[in-house]
Amino acid sequence: MIRAGIVGGTGYTGVELLRILALHPEVAVSAVTSRADAGQRVDKLYPSLRGLCDAAFSLPEIDNLAACDVVFFATPNGTAMQMAADLLARGVKVIDLSADFRIKDVAEWEKWYGMQHASPELITEAVYGLPEVNREAIKQARLIACPGCYPTAVQLGFLPLLENGLVDTQYLIADVKSGVSGAGRKAEISSLMSEAGESFKAYAVAGHRHLPEIRQGLQLATSESVGLTFVPHLTPMIRGIHATLYARLRGGADLQALFEQRYQNEAFVDVLPAGSHADTRNVRGSNRCQIAVHQPQGGDTVVILSVIDNLVKGASGQAVQNMNLLFGLPEQQGLETVALYP
Amino acid sequence: MIRAGIVGGTGYTGVELLRILALHPEVAVSAVTSRADAGQRVDKLYPSLRGLCDAAFSLPEIDNLAACDVVFFATPNGTAMQMAADLLARGVKVIDLSADFRIKDVAEWEKWYGMQHASPELITEAVYGLPEVNREAIKQARLIACPGCYPTAVQLGFLPLLENGLVDTQYLIADVKSGVSGAGRKAEISSLMSEAGESFKAYAVAGHRHLPEIRQGLQLATSESVGLTFVPHLTPMIRGIHATLYARLRGGADLQALFEQRYQNEAFVDVLPAGSHADTRNVRGSNRCQIAVHQPQGGDTVVILSVIDNLVKGASGQAVQNMNLLFGLPEQQGLETVALYP
Amino acid sequence: MIRAGIVGGTGYTGVELLRILALHPEVAVSAVTSRADAGQRVDKLYPSLRGLCDAAFSLPEIDNLAACDVVFFATPNGTAMQMAADLLARGVKVIDLSADFRIKDVAEWEKWYGMQHASPELITEAVYGLPEVNREAIKQARLIACPGCYPTAVQLGFLPLLENGLVDTQYLIADVKSGVSGAGRKAEISSLMSEAGESFKAYAVAGHRHLPEIRQGLQLATSESVGLTFVPHLTPMIRGIHATLYARLRGGADLQALFEQRYQNEAFVDVLPAGSHADTRNVRGSNRCQIAVHQPQGGDTVVILSVIDNLVKGASGQAVQNMNLLFGLPEQQGLETVALYP
Amino acid sequence: MIRAGIVGGTGYTGVELLRILALHPEVAVSAVTSRADAGQRVDKLYPSLRGLCDAAFSLPEIDNLAACDVVFFATPNGTAMQMAADLLARGVKVIDLSADFRIKDVAEWEKWYGMQHASPELITEAVYGLPEVNREAIKQARLIACPGCYPTAVQLGFLPLLENGLVDTQYLIADVKSGVSGAGRKAEISSLMSEAGESFKAYAVAGHRHLPEIRQGLQLATSESVGLTFVPHLTPMIRGIHATLYARLRGGADLQALFEQRYQNEAFVDVLPAGSHADTRNVRGSNRCQIAVHQPQGGDTVVILSVIDNLVKGASGQAVQNMNLLFGLPEQQGLETVALYP
Repeated sequence: MIRAGIVGGTGYTGVELLRILALHPEVAVSAVTSRADAGQRVDKLYPSLRGLCDAAFSLPEIDNLAACDVVFFATPNGTAMQMAADLLARGVKVIDLSADFRIKDVAEWEKWYGMQHASPELITEAVYGLPEVNREAIKQARLIACPGCYPTAVQLGFLPLLENGLVDTQYLIADVKSGVSGAGRKAEISSLMSEAGESFKAYAVAGHRHLPEIRQGLQLATSESVGLTFVPHLTPMIRGIHATLYARLRGGADLQALFEQRYQNEAFVDVLPAGSHADTRNVRGSNRCQIAVHQPQGGDTVVILSVIDNLVKGASGQAVQNMNLLFGLPEQQGLETVALYP
Repeated sequence: MIRAGIVGGTGYTGVELLRILALHPEVAVSAVTSRADAGQRVDKLYPSLRGLCDAAFSLPEIDNLAACDVVFFATPNGTAMQMAADLLARGVKVIDLSADFRIKDVAEWEKWYGMQHASPELITEAVYGLPEVNREAIKQARLIACPGCYPTAVQLGFLPLLENGLVDTQYLIADVKSGVSGAGRKAEISSLMSEAGESFKAYAVAGHRHLPEIRQGLQLATSESVGLTFVPHLTPMIRGIHATLYARLRGGADLQALFEQRYQNEAFVDVLPAGSHADTRNVRGSNRCQIAVHQPQGGDTVVILSVIDNLVKGASGQAVQNMNLLFGLPEQQGLETVALYP
Repeated sequence: MIRAGIVGGTGYTGVELLRILALHPEVAVSAVTSRADAGQRVDKLYPSLRGLCDAAFSLPEIDNLAACDVVFFATPNGTAMQMAADLLARGVKVIDLSADFRIKDVAEWEKWYGMQHASPELITEAVYGLPEVNREAIKQARLIACPGCYPTAVQLGFLPLLENGLVDTQYLIADVKSGVSGAGRKAEISSLMSEAGESFKAYAVAGHRHLPEIRQGLQLATSESVGLTFVPHLTPMIRGIHATLYARLRGGADLQALFEQRYQNEAFVDVLPAGSHADTRNVRGSNRCQIAVHQPQGGDTVVILSVIDNLVKGASGQAVQNMNLLFGLPEQQGLETVALYP
Repeated sequence: MIRAGIVGGTGYTGVELLRILALHPEVAVSAVTSRADAGQRVDKLYPSLRGLCDAAFSLPEIDNLAACDVVFFATPNGTAMQMAADLLARGVKVIDLSADFRIKDVAEWEKWYGMQHASPELITEAVYGLPEVNREAIKQARLIACPGCYPTAVQLGFLPLLENGLVDTQYLIADVKSGVSGAGRKAEISSLMSEAGESFKAYAVAGHRHLPEIRQGLQLATSESVGLTFVPHLTPMIRGIHATLYARLRGGADLQALFEQRYQNEAFVDVLPAGSHADTRNVRGSNRCQIAVHQPQGGDTVVILSVIDNLVKGASGQAVQNMNLLFGLPEQQGLETVALYP
């Protein structure tokens, strides 16, 4: 049995880890921390977990976590970088769902995240936890930087095009729509149902923190310089991300076959039949990315539709997928759930 | 391996059966019928099932179903009663999710459902599939009449009061709110998102088909005459039923203890701690009923809050729970999912 | 031109007053206060008002308000009672949308609202602003206590029954469902779309602050003692209240005719034809209350359905209706909008 | 008083016309037709109009409409082209909200709409009813082809760029998101709340009927050849369209000033301050288009956000704006409503 700890168990990615791990046959959650709710039973805050989680929240202290085999950070940015080194030193593997170790260029990270990095020496070691790109490195890692939700949907959609040099990399457009759970479980007026419900808007058009992360991931897939416009939007639903990706083709190719081939061995990436549209409801609650490939009117613009559940493949499910790889378990273990439709 | 057939696989209770059974370790779905979509792959209509269901829809004919060990009817009312006798004669167990065998009084059934019953001789044999009341009979049955969604939530909430003679049975009120999936996957204007979204209404106040079913179930729990006012409402969400039940107490009692004791051995009925409110999101996608007990201002009116997912404990999950009992499997097998929160 | 001031212009009832008054031909909004946003243009916070409101938020100080003919308090409870006396002394009429002057029994008010009342001497003078009951008194008033949203829907539904002695007043039940805007524009986790969306729950079953207000209003309509169970619920939509009211009839009566007669001269109460159901969408954005009367299966339980828009007839629209009466304007002026369907 | 007729009064654009015209001081609706509901009172189907519309639906026959000064077609495609010639011959002006007269190239129209055009001779005469482009022609017209909802949002966003030759016209991208009321009041499974709620998807990526209409409108604004990729999406809300438009800039320009200048005299186009995001809720129920202009990271990609209410500025409001122009009324008459926020 793997003993898992969760730091930051009261946010949406934290409770989603609890939901997934509750049924994982090889994992026991031995510590769930929350500074604000320490001492309270987890299932009092989350009655959906009654009978499935016997724990109480504890303080996020190293001693409460050092007995774990692996610790997940489901915390705001800036926490994992404070605690990771100590945990690694005690032999605990670390899977960080926050952004602390995602960007290799420290200066770039500090610019976008507005703070000084506390553990720059760990950034190089950290493995970017996108299994469809880094599977072998993940298996050997001590420290995993789980991708952001937007970056997961966008990279999985663009990668086959860039890896094969099929598009003009200078003019990529990612128009991406997210459900409101992406904003987290924070008391903010903009996330109220009266504000976010029955309305649609773009935000952070001038620049969103996931832009450098996506750019870094795409850049690794091509030797050419990447120019990317990324516009995130808020859509009135709870879960789901839909990325609509645009690129200009350089020449002809059987794009459908290319995508199917690229992901044929991936359990969690499903290329839909030609002519399909991807619908976020079909991955709700599951760890799957579904992708549809289009070339409207046979023109030179390719349109990729890529959908995930932001809390699963975009966060906690992908974190468990990484954990499975880290510990030599079957990659799908504990993740075989079916999307909740309708 | 139990071979299961599903008649009416294209409605919401049908696809919900497919979702649940896809992960049931002891069941293989060997036939899924749909008159309208016969020949089409199931996962073309329901991309959420890609990789999990290899079947195509077949015609709803006895010969396609006779090789099954059990057949679920996820059909409109009036279908199961046409086919049940033939299947039973061939040794196939039948679990009917429609209303065909729920009401013991044939004349009453025919009045509310507006058609002549095709198999009145089977009504007596049929066991009402509410395991919390009929567990032993279910284990021995050939034909199960699964309760309706409203009746499940209402009966589980009222039963402890009636079984113990604690309330005036003449003046029971059930104010119940359902998500829109309860109306089924039918092309009707009233179920359009533009009509049902961002709005709330009561319907069928003059009389809803679930009224006689609830009344019959409550009547079995008491020797006194039952007077019930049942008002169903449509609430702008997809899944979930919230029953708010009112009754006048006859005397003092520790209601919280009473409810906890009544359901202490029930895996799928969870009595919340005193002072709690039940929230439909906490049972979304799960087979659980959560119940909260209140006596406002210590007065003589008891208020029970009872929530279920109408498609799971209110339909397909309860059907699988019945199947487990029928075949001697652990009652919870295949139903250990965690509610999808948020 | 009436010069109107709004104290607390950043909440939902404040911005709703601005929406309504923007098109009122006899009113100019001359002051809008907000402590937090003082100095900022109103239409920067509320781009829906661009071109319709030239004001900036000012501090909520008497001197900024004394030049007004009328001041609306769209504030949390406890503010209006601090400022009303000063404004009245300067000849300014006061319309309070908060609860400060609604309850005549000071001790009762202090128990439910958890603070000491700052102006108990004004409570007697304050007129409860339900025009369908108090029209003549409103016309003469200096200080109006606007009813709460739940109390408006419940009283308009119950009053014809109580005024005519038709029901057992000891056992009234009000099962009421509200959209989330009723919780106000406050940064609270429970009002996040991820929490309140796609879910339904009761709250404050043990006792809600609107209970004594409703009880007081009903008590004034009957000489008998009133026993009321009031259960509020949160439903996943933004605007709207649906009250489902239950009472036991004492004898026969033509309830439909009775309701139609009671409200035949009321511009904002619309009794629907017999057999109708009331739907909150049909009053969304309008100042109308729609009521449907039912007597299921001809039994002795009457069921009244009463719907309003909580921000209009339940708050700001009713406040403007009161203002029209106070200033001798046509009661409907500025309130002739049509509900926004779909 | 202008006598107006509405053909197809039971769809969403029909009832929206009724909502707007109910308060228009210069218009009396003298005929509302519906083949399916002929004989029924309008306010029985639409209780939101009780007291505001005394009409009953009549059959869509020329004789019922010939006494009107103007007839609106709120019908499916293919109806207006059958009746327009007769009405024009009788001196009735025609405002068509369907697509029958929008496309000047008959063959192109017939290809996309899959039927033969019944009145090709009227296509040349029809004026495309986008007042921000065609105001003077509209004033002189007999027959107006109201723009589609997507084309309105997209054209208003792109026009200033194309009219000034600022972008590469070969590679325009319009990623547009619509609420579900755009699909109309039709009983279709894909529009059920259980299907369209809590989910997001693109549709018709291979080619949507509004593509040739948008292309035609953009082509008129530039002498260069237009290459456009248009991807429509369905977002889980009732009203609203959000267009996110991408183009590659040719050189530097003060885009904010350019947009403000282009629309400075337009009552219904509102260019938001620099740095703003446009939110569909801020135009809900109003005839306004709000536009925000962005140039992320100062790069060479311009991003325009353009929002409308699809049923108002995208359909019935724009139709009334056209009517005002046709009859020499103030352009804003009857359209001064404020968006319904929240």
